[in-house]
Amino acid sequence: MPETAPIKAERLRSFVAQALGTRGVPAADAEAVAGLMVEADIYGYGTHGVFRLRQYLARLAGGGCNPAPRIAVVQETAATALIDGDNGLGHLAMAAARDLAIDKARAAGIGWVGVRSGNHAGPLALYVRPQAEAGLLGMAAAVGSANHLPPWGGTDLLLGTNPIAFAAPTAGPDPFVFDMATTVAAMGKIKTLAQQGLPMPEGWMIGRDGQPLTDPERRGDGFLLPIGGPKGYGLSVAVGLLAGVLNGAAFGSDVVDFTTDTTSRTNTGQFVMALDPAAFGLGDGFAEAAAHVFAEFRASSPLPGHDPVRLPGDGKTAKADARRRDGLSLNPALRRDLNALAADCGIAPPFPGEG
Amino acid sequence: MPETAPIKAERLRSFVAQALGTRGVPAADAEAVAGLMVEADIYGYGTHGVFRLRQYLARLAGGGCNPAPRIAVVQETAATALIDGDNGLGHLAMAAARDLAIDKARAAGIGWVGVRSGNHAGPLALYVRPQAEAGLLGMAAAVGSANHLPPWGGTDLLLGTNPIAFAAPTAGPDPFVFDMATTVAAMGKIKTLAQQGLPMPEGWMIGRDGQPLTDPERRGDGFLLPIGGPKGYGLSVAVGLLAGVLNGAAFGSDVVDFTTDTTSRTNTGQFVMALDPAAFGLGDGFAEAAAHVFAEFRASSPLPGHDPVRLPGDGKTAKADARRRDGLSLNPALRRDLNALAADCGIAPPFPGEG
Repeated sequence: MPETAPIKAERLRSFVAQALGTRGVPAADAEAVAGLMVEADIYGYGTHGVFRLRQYLARLAGGGCNPAPRIAVVQETAATALIDGDNGLGHLAMAAARDLAIDKARAAGIGWVGVRSGNHAGPLALYVRPQAEAGLLGMAAAVGSANHLPPWGGTDLLLGTNPIAFAAPTAGPDPFVFDMATTVAAMGKIKTLAQQGLPMPEGWMIGRDGQPLTDPERRGDGFLLPIGGPKGYGLSVAVGLLAGVLNGAAFGSDVVDFTTDTTSRTNTGQFVMALDPAAFGLGDGFAEAAAHVFAEFRASSPLPGHDPVRLPGDGKTAKADARRRDGLSLNPALRRDLNALAADCGIAPPFPGEG
Repeated sequence: MPETAPIKAERLRSFVAQALGTRGVPAADAEAVAGLMVEADIYGYGTHGVFRLRQYLARLAGGGCNPAPRIAVVQETAATALIDGDNGLGHLAMAAARDLAIDKARAAGIGWVGVRSGNHAGPLALYVRPQAEAGLLGMAAAVGSANHLPPWGGTDLLLGTNPIAFAAPTAGPDPFVFDMATTVAAMGKIKTLAQQGLPMPEGWMIGRDGQPLTDPERRGDGFLLPIGGPKGYGLSVAVGLLAGVLNGAAFGSDVVDFTTDTTSRTNTGQFVMALDPAAFGLGDGFAEAAAHVFAEFRASSPLPGHDPVRLPGDGKTAKADARRRDGLSLNPALRRDLNALAADCGIAPPFPGEG
């Protein structure tokens, strides 16, 4: 059935770049952002890849996001920098931050690059996996692009999912790549349950009454919960300080909900870090030592009823290679949405002959 | 009643230093470690302060810990360093790492200092709060000094509580200081419940059968659980890589349980980081911006039945000041234990006239 055939990565990239171009994004930037968005889908981060194109286009059209930013390094030392994303598509500032952090790590042992005036940039894994592929350790974090929870014990929406990510090389097919929200569940998952008419497990959300909330249709009446209760809260605040306040970016009530607001500058804050094992007396020795520990982990007998032990990132390289080779299987709703966006943009649909 | 009178911090420090001295620790090191151990109690980290003296003395006596280490910087760039703790008391290497990270942050914007051949060093807060007091941001992490949990879904004890800590200055009485284990509960809390004959809440531990374990007496039959399930697991592995593997320190099966082993070198790994807001265009502006967000948090109406919203670190400065002024109220069991240690060491008891 041709309507469910996978789409080649190159075709998807070219469509996304073309769509961004119709909203005033210069060709080089459009190709860079499209490449990263498709890369997110290639690595299985489906909620943070081309699925977000509709939001990005709406914010470009609405004036909330600058189509032609001038990304600039506004502060710099040998090991640190602050990048101003000029309110452009978030991928541009974050890719620049990642590349600069890697350069600095090679020269100074560590590179820590903050971003202000950024925007949603897709999954953080995009900005830490390349460090691991280059033999470095990576870390990144972001102030979430919408507030979905109150400070611990409070009732005002002042915190986002504030994700944090880590990566490290291993002597094996898969680097360690770990990308997590500091909340138990992400809003995307809850919306999916609502579509399916399924309840949420207890522990994902609470209502304004402090009681468990399990009806995903009532998500607007409650709050996401941080992992580990007050621990996840503390972690989320730490991310807000390092990724937001330190960079002069938004944190707290000045965070703009980019999923509903198409006209306001978000001033999203993020940071990217890279560390070179060579500065600690290790070169490839790091990857070998990590692989040794991971082999112990994988050899641990599973708990009754559990799958074999895995490490974050396991299997992603092979799956990504397969998607690069065979194309990407996007779900029907997303295919329809991309076709509809193509019509809005006046360009050829990525899935001709589908609705 | 004189037997429950608080003990002056200076008296407690002097006792701890004297006790360490009887195990071969040179006077300057003994005073430095005693100062940090008492500082832990002053800031309310009771499970990681002088309560640990018994273990430290046993490991010094048993040969597991080197009483007279030569702490050395073995790798260094302008922004990074690796310190070898020479298997001495862990506080010595970590205090050196913290001070070096602060110096490097002032010079290069960031300082990241790893430690190998360290030992248990008390609460991480000791190694991040000073950054905040100096107007810098701090981060630190450690490979836990005993393995209490398997990799997610496994059954072999290969991971510790792997704590992580953050600090930041605020324009207010209390800096942000957040120090957490990546497990739901710490083993110390579970031992306390066992002493009190109370059950654990579900979610703290599971048994080897994968079922909830709530009897604290059966803690040896089960595993601690990471916060947020696989998320805490991933975070714990990230800490193991950054604090352990990167520094050539133990992680996985080579972690020695320092609570039961008095003869083996632990090769504990940790790191300390400092970041200077001046490198990001902010000086005191950081503290003011953080205080502005925190004021919003504190103003959030509490959930029904909840106390007012707090930030990690709130109230610690005033409590610490009171303990510095009025002395420390240690619990009767700890007072007896310190008196018993004094007898073992052949020195005057800190609580004369008590059992």
